Amino acid sequence: MMLPVGAKIGIIGGGQLGRMLAVAAARLGFDVSIYCPEADCPAGRVAQQQTIGRYDHLPSVLDWARSCDVVTYEFENVPVDTVHYLVSSGCDVRPGARSLEIAQDRLAEKAFLRDAGIETAPYVAVNGPQDLARALTQLGGAGILKTRREGYDGKGQLRLVSGDDCEAAFSRLKAQPSILEAIVPFSCEISAIVARSITGESLCYDIPRNHHVEGVLSRSSVPSGVDQTTEAKAREAAICLAAALDHVGVLALEFFVLADGSLLANEVAPRVHNSGHWTPEACRTGQFEQHIRAVAGWPLGSVERKYRAEMGNLLGHEALAPFEAAPAGSVITLYGKREAKAGRKMGHWVRLVD
Amino acid sequence: MMLPVGAKIGIIGGGQLGRMLAVAAARLGFDVSIYCPEADCPAGRVAQQQTIGRYDHLPSVLDWARSCDVVTYEFENVPVDTVHYLVSSGCDVRPGARSLEIAQDRLAEKAFLRDAGIETAPYVAVNGPQDLARALTQLGGAGILKTRREGYDGKGQLRLVSGDDCEAAFSRLKAQPSILEAIVPFSCEISAIVARSITGESLCYDIPRNHHVEGVLSRSSVPSGVDQTTEAKAREAAICLAAALDHVGVLALEFFVLADGSLLANEVAPRVHNSGHWTPEACRTGQFEQHIRAVAGWPLGSVERKYRAEMGNLLGHEALAPFEAAPAGSVITLYGKREAKAGRKMGHWVRLVD
Repeated sequence: MMLPVGAKIGIIGGGQLGRMLAVAAARLGFDVSIYCPEADCPAGRVAQQQTIGRYDHLPSVLDWARSCDVVTYEFENVPVDTVHYLVSSGCDVRPGARSLEIAQDRLAEKAFLRDAGIETAPYVAVNGPQDLARALTQLGGAGILKTRREGYDGKGQLRLVSGDDCEAAFSRLKAQPSILEAIVPFSCEISAIVARSITGESLCYDIPRNHHVEGVLSRSSVPSGVDQTTEAKAREAAICLAAALDHVGVLALEFFVLADGSLLANEVAPRVHNSGHWTPEACRTGQFEQHIRAVAGWPLGSVERKYRAEMGNLLGHEALAPFEAAPAGSVITLYGKREAKAGRKMGHWVRLVD
Repeated sequence: MMLPVGAKIGIIGGGQLGRMLAVAAARLGFDVSIYCPEADCPAGRVAQQQTIGRYDHLPSVLDWARSCDVVTYEFENVPVDTVHYLVSSGCDVRPGARSLEIAQDRLAEKAFLRDAGIETAPYVAVNGPQDLARALTQLGGAGILKTRREGYDGKGQLRLVSGDDCEAAFSRLKAQPSILEAIVPFSCEISAIVARSITGESLCYDIPRNHHVEGVLSRSSVPSGVDQTTEAKAREAAICLAAALDHVGVLALEFFVLADGSLLANEVAPRVHNSGHWTPEACRTGQFEQHIRAVAGWPLGSVERKYRAEMGNLLGHEALAPFEAAPAGSVITLYGKREAKAGRKMGHWVRLVD
């Protein structure tokens, strides 16, 4: 069912993605309510309403959710139990708990990807230092140790080779359930950003190539320069994953591209994605509006791309002088974060080329 | 001086123009505070803060304005006294009182335009039924009676010919100070939308052709189809007017185009304008962002147009099924107004053509 104009969309989470979603929702005439633990968050300042509360305080989340016509989330670490509770209490939450579950646990994520026929780098589950030593041998003497939960932007990761102190390494990551992932010699990284509607209609944006610095996305550019067969495979994989999850909304799937053009899926984000921040400027419908359309039960908009585009993040102090940090003629978006901490994502620029 | 990222921009007025300005400001990382008499107004729902108060309640407006780093307005009927009071109390208000004064009084407006060397249709001031009869004769037996104040979208206007009951006509418009304007045989209507920065830098958008239905803007399309010399004259006039007013921000000047290509200025709007609603989609920098940049003391953005564009208003119930009312593939913007009253501007669509 299509939400009527003027309906209220609830967003769990108050960061920049919530802010850009809120603005896109407002543009379609929706009211927006934000649920997040921090007062004065970036999304709350552009929303009609904000409720301050813990994500795991079920009565408070439910109270808030009941004031909304549909609930979505802007980050993948919303407690799965919270979403289950909302759904079992009769709330519409889009995307659902399944998309969160696999995005929160690297082991479940990789298993789900493989079950869906999407290849990943080889990996081994690691629950202790002994496992880790065994896993290193199994993967040929090198790997990246990653916690199963809560890692993002390269946090919670360690690069290891045979002979490293497995005990120390495992405790560096706070002795959490982890995986060891094989180091793959990729030639570049790309991502597929797909939107799926409540009727199962799926549209994938053109594929950006992504450049990271110290594990944090630095730039995305489109077209990717990767050959079209590879791009088509990436799009198909993302569409197939969204269908397997019965996902409603936008979802991003990151890939390593190997020298022979084959793809290894790296990470799933069950939400709008940093590597899609060029879409509002370069495409008929941007990823934020697309996500809102999907969760509101509206038809998706065209993802046709009109420009070549490059997107760069403004980190820390760069955002205080954005016109100096961004290429001339860029479109600047700033997130309204109060403190320009080093490395913090404060905004981004998009440069369009005809 | 450039306002720093994170500064607070105050907007007097809570309608759709305020809403679109607030969203554009948020995107540049500013906080927004709305001052308007109605709770739950379209702009308030996308702003960080809203103060509810009367426009002529000076202590309340000043209190609010002091919480903002700069104040602007989204409609031209803000009391001039209020702006004078804010400025004399040390607040930065952009644009200033002069732009309001001429936009609020058709007689002052026309006189100012002529003083600035910008031609208008012939007109005569009318302060009573006797004036009216005389004015009708003076203008050749026909004219449009318009109240000097508070008319918009064709309200407060009457078409008259010699022999009409001048007494009745004058009291139909509530016996207010008015003007009688000659009826000009124009071939089409266009508008010039110009932005002027605090340093006097001025940029004018490409000229749209405007189509009205019952005095209300229905569609704007760009390019206008009018010849380039005429368009250049319109742009020059708008830039010259903005300079004469020492205007800071966006300003629109509407024209009648006569059969010989000459121009008669019709109306000034000291703000973003309905006939510029295609600019965010079709140009590098939209009129809302441009206005915010200007009032924040930032450099203006490029007004380069990338597409042919058509914009149409969604009136009344059209906004409840926007995808049916708008051409396929349009970008839809809805204003979040609660009641879809007949004829009310509820949203708009923009269709882009490569």
